[in-house]
Amino acid sequence: MHLKGIFITFEGPDGSGKSTQIQKLAEALVRDGYPVVVTREPGGTPISDQIRGILLSPENTAMNGQAEALLMAASRAQHVHEKIIPALEAGKIVLCDRFVDASMAYQAAGLGLDAEAVREINRFAISGIMPHRTYLLDIPVEVGRRRIQERLARSGTRLDRIELKDEAYHERVREAFLQIASAEPDRVYLIDADRDPEEIFKTIYTDCQRLLRVSSAD
Amino acid sequence: MHLKGIFITFEGPDGSGKSTQIQKLAEALVRDGYPVVVTREPGGTPISDQIRGILLSPENTAMNGQAEALLMAASRAQHVHEKIIPALEAGKIVLCDRFVDASMAYQAAGLGLDAEAVREINRFAISGIMPHRTYLLDIPVEVGRRRIQERLARSGTRLDRIELKDEAYHERVREAFLQIASAEPDRVYLIDADRDPEEIFKTIYTDCQRLLRVSSAD
Repeated sequence: MHLKGIFITFEGPDGSGKSTQIQKLAEALVRDGYPVVVTREPGGTPISDQIRGILLSPENTAMNGQAEALLMAASRAQHVHEKIIPALEAGKIVLCDRFVDASMAYQAAGLGLDAEAVREINRFAISGIMPHRTYLLDIPVEVGRRRIQERLARSGTRLDRIELKDEAYHERVREAFLQIASAEPDRVYLIDADRDPEEIFKTIYTDCQRLLRVSSAD
Repeated sequence: MHLKGIFITFEGPDGSGKSTQIQKLAEALVRDGYPVVVTREPGGTPISDQIRGILLSPENTAMNGQAEALLMAASRAQHVHEKIIPALEAGKIVLCDRFVDASMAYQAAGLGLDAEAVREINRFAISGIMPHRTYLLDIPVEVGRRRIQERLARSGTRLDRIELKDEAYHERVREAFLQIASAEPDRVYLIDADRDPEEIFKTIYTDCQRLLRVSSAD
């Protein structure tokens, strides 16, 4: 499959500032004249959004770990085939909030599931579509938790089913993300996200411009 | 994991009479004094029923094959861990309408997905819980289709998303079921379901009584 576009994912815990950075990067790339698609997981298509509803409902506390991992992969399969592949075929830059790395961190490491099985399930889901670049926004667990609490206090909304998990879970998630960054340094750009958002954006934008130059020279 | 109960599944195309036979067998076993749980897939728990809603909605025509297989497995994972394992641990007889064989037939063979990948995904979902006995109700595709049309005409309901698929699909599904029966003759009891329901029931009940005698002698 020849895909002309560029696939960029953002990973990191809730409260790491992914949404802010995705929005800033999208605006900058559009200003530079690139066709950009911004999307997120779980979700991104009508069917994936229905699955997201099941995954994040605070009522679904009985959800089993295997079911959670399989629902994430199902949402991803639909998203990849209905939205990401067509956008890449059309030569667009796809900016996606979370992807396979999130399943390795939140489901495999966080819930203590068989990592090789979770990897295989996701391999089946994505049909070989992996990101060209992943920006991993790393922050200490307590910083992320504090930012989320502040955001919720401002908006008056509730924590979702996954945000409600305990601190040890979120430590395992962070550790798993750091291991992925160290195992795949060519794809994953590890970023200290406990800094000023403008500084973080400069780091990402500079790297992304280089990535686009290399890609257009191919 | 030591499970005292007996796990029995019913497989076969829509219109093969599975529901009728499950109901008859459940009534007979209850009359014989056994504790019986009747359940079905996709579904069987509140979370699995939410997933069933996504899978069968006639609106979700954009659903990708991988997403369908993963949703079936997610529903199954929840069902196995929340309902089937606890029932078997309590020594009950679980009668389940469809299980893993249905995914090998409808998703792997029907949709033309990688059979080994679908098997692995289901292995992850079920944590080693396979049926002690599977009754495969086999009928020619056209007989099943005719029975469903008659049922719909009586009740005035619509075909679901999977029933709407074409005849070649349903032929692949039937062929896959027959292959499973021939590969696993100790587990799968192949039954000609194009016969009088009372006769079919006698065949199933006789086999089931033998299965329960063997099991209680263990």
